[in-house]
Amino acid sequence: MEEVEEKEEQKTVSVQWPLKVWSLTTSVRTSSPLIQCITNFVSMDIMANTLLAAGASPAMLHALQELQDFTPHIHALCINIGTLSPDWLPSMKSAAQAAAQLGKPWVLDPVAVFASEFRLRACLELLGLRPSVVRGNASEVIALANASTGTGKGVDSIHESTDAVDAAKSLARASGAVVAVSGAVDIITDGQQVIGVHNGVAMMQKITATGCAVTALIAAFIAVDPSHPLEATASALSVFGVAGEMGMEFARGPASLRMHLIDALHGLDQAAILSRVKITSIE
Amino acid sequence: MEEVEEKEEQKTVSVQWPLKVWSLTTSVRTSSPLIQCITNFVSMDIMANTLLAAGASPAMLHALQELQDFTPHIHALCINIGTLSPDWLPSMKSAAQAAAQLGKPWVLDPVAVFASEFRLRACLELLGLRPSVVRGNASEVIALANASTGTGKGVDSIHESTDAVDAAKSLARASGAVVAVSGAVDIITDGQQVIGVHNGVAMMQKITATGCAVTALIAAFIAVDPSHPLEATASALSVFGVAGEMGMEFARGPASLRMHLIDALHGLDQAAILSRVKITSIE
Amino acid sequence: MEEVEEKEEQKTVSVQWPLKVWSLTTSVRTSSPLIQCITNFVSMDIMANTLLAAGASPAMLHALQELQDFTPHIHALCINIGTLSPDWLPSMKSAAQAAAQLGKPWVLDPVAVFASEFRLRACLELLGLRPSVVRGNASEVIALANASTGTGKGVDSIHESTDAVDAAKSLARASGAVVAVSGAVDIITDGQQVIGVHNGVAMMQKITATGCAVTALIAAFIAVDPSHPLEATASALSVFGVAGEMGMEFARGPASLRMHLIDALHGLDQAAILSRVKITSIE
Repeated sequence: MEEVEEKEEQKTVSVQWPLKVWSLTTSVRTSSPLIQCITNFVSMDIMANTLLAAGASPAMLHALQELQDFTPHIHALCINIGTLSPDWLPSMKSAAQAAAQLGKPWVLDPVAVFASEFRLRACLELLGLRPSVVRGNASEVIALANASTGTGKGVDSIHESTDAVDAAKSLARASGAVVAVSGAVDIITDGQQVIGVHNGVAMMQKITATGCAVTALIAAFIAVDPSHPLEATASALSVFGVAGEMGMEFARGPASLRMHLIDALHGLDQAAILSRVKITSIE
Repeated sequence: MEEVEEKEEQKTVSVQWPLKVWSLTTSVRTSSPLIQCITNFVSMDIMANTLLAAGASPAMLHALQELQDFTPHIHALCINIGTLSPDWLPSMKSAAQAAAQLGKPWVLDPVAVFASEFRLRACLELLGLRPSVVRGNASEVIALANASTGTGKGVDSIHESTDAVDAAKSLARASGAVVAVSGAVDIITDGQQVIGVHNGVAMMQKITATGCAVTALIAAFIAVDPSHPLEATASALSVFGVAGEMGMEFARGPASLRMHLIDALHGLDQAAILSRVKITSIE
Repeated sequence: MEEVEEKEEQKTVSVQWPLKVWSLTTSVRTSSPLIQCITNFVSMDIMANTLLAAGASPAMLHALQELQDFTPHIHALCINIGTLSPDWLPSMKSAAQAAAQLGKPWVLDPVAVFASEFRLRACLELLGLRPSVVRGNASEVIALANASTGTGKGVDSIHESTDAVDAAKSLARASGAVVAVSGAVDIITDGQQVIGVHNGVAMMQKITATGCAVTALIAAFIAVDPSHPLEATASALSVFGVAGEMGMEFARGPASLRMHLIDALHGLDQAAILSRVKITSIE
């Protein structure tokens, strides 16, 4: 009996998602939220171009000296520790703190948190500043949930996203954040509901910083719907995946996929969203 | 009577510009000026590729320790405060000072100068080191002219370039620099003459760091004609706009436009320049 | 008589190279070596994308605080001084030292070492930490071999690679590293043998950081065959050149070449390698 109810719920959710995703996509385009990114050196280009293509307004400002002037004007904040060094951490913490105090959503991308104690400690400190969303790969989410390193290879996951469902739920409950786990199926949870996003193509893994880019896109989506972080996060992951699927139709390799993905993100119309978005309830 | 004179002057100027632009374009290609860029992390890739495509030789060196050895060999300097932090500012000031003392042209891009007191103070200090050209968007030029913040949104302008003509003239007179305001029509002034460049396409705004890239191109053009900063600046803006127009013919979105723009810049021939350059006297 | 022997040796070597190159190409794809890159801001994107397209796993981590945790897990290290500043040098030295002590190969890219005493001193210190391979342009290799600056223009070479054969041999003998000199013909030497790689196209010089990217690719190739640094280095240079040749068939300028090169690198098959690899014994 319980199983039947779950299936019905799943079906209902699936039908409503594409309209929700399209609604948020147009909101980002019309309101053009200002997204401050304190991020790594590798991802800045693709992250800014992803935000611009989606209709948002990116700003890569990170100096501690200007946060007080600048951060009050943003609509969401994206923090990414990819090329973390000690001199950037105070800005990240200060901006996160400001965002939290100002009631603005902020998103954490704990790149390679499993790779060193230095990263783990930094992420745990940032996690204490109450991000709205944490998005990582499975190994990153498992490392954060267990507060332990050694769960990944380099910056890459050695787990499937579906291996990290329990870790994601546990992390969501402990932190109060929506947790998203990227993978063949993206997993999104607030600690209770678990949502699966079934968009995207495998070759996106062969483009550097696509994970960072989609985290920034989550920030843009949550900026226009801050009271529904679960829906905004799943929508952003789905939109990015749909753009990847559409880009893949023209791509001959990872570099042309990168180009066509950004072009597709810019040109996405309602028909594409309604026919392609595939979001389900997992449990 | 005054109106008639102005129109005649405008016509004369228009006829000569395409040849001037082509002449400078070929000078950059044949002399391949060495352009030192102390710039932001977001723009480094597109800036270096823009300079290379135009035939110039980019060098992204910023360490204070090597300016004494290096800067004397450059042909022009480009300083951009996009991802400014206190540890980069001494290099910017020192390089600008060295360029000014050595009689080499240098160009300032006051990215988001309106966003914080930190940026504004940094730019005012740099402005005191006598840049040859300042290029920004309308909100940046207005902020600099008024020495006040709060005139923009994130890093984006909230004004049209044509709203900033008076601010640009006032800034040019106060600083001694040629001032260029990017927009649908680019405005260039030395405080007396005002020139309009009518090239480019709107989608260039959806590519990150196109403004930074064109500032670097201005540095390359002024490097080959340092005694005519107004003409060199207008020419670089026109060439970049023409490349954008030609790239737009093949583009399906901002990412493919970026690629085709750089390709077009590399391949620009005399026929394209002569038929497309559109520069007029504004007042 | 001596000439005849040399020609015969050259012929034998040429026949075996394509198979060797293909073997290493597949090894990189199947073992996906983890390559730590401490590199410049300009090159991070193309370097990471080159490694991913080749099947390797890039990691751009540079904080001194995490080297102890991270560097023991890598398969090779790539150090590049393109945007060197004093705060990055300790990490570079510490990572190089760790790699050397752990018996892991590491590769040095002495970008613009001729441009300042600061760069030269840094490179000489790094050279003392026994890199497996040094790859640069002719002016960089000549500067390093002579421990003197002033041999280049900006970051560009003013010499042909063939002008640097003696400098490369001398540097290889003095440092114990394989030395590669990029150019129309790439020169690779261990101080005794001298190999020439005749792949690539001239337009690759018009894409920023292609040199940096191929140095990272060398790190990936040497990671899967650390006991044959000469062969691994020549193979990586040849593979990158072949990808450039194949990309050039679709390119309309430097930006599209960059995209098609990365796509081609990702898609390279045995037939392309066997028909295109052109490596010869020079002396």
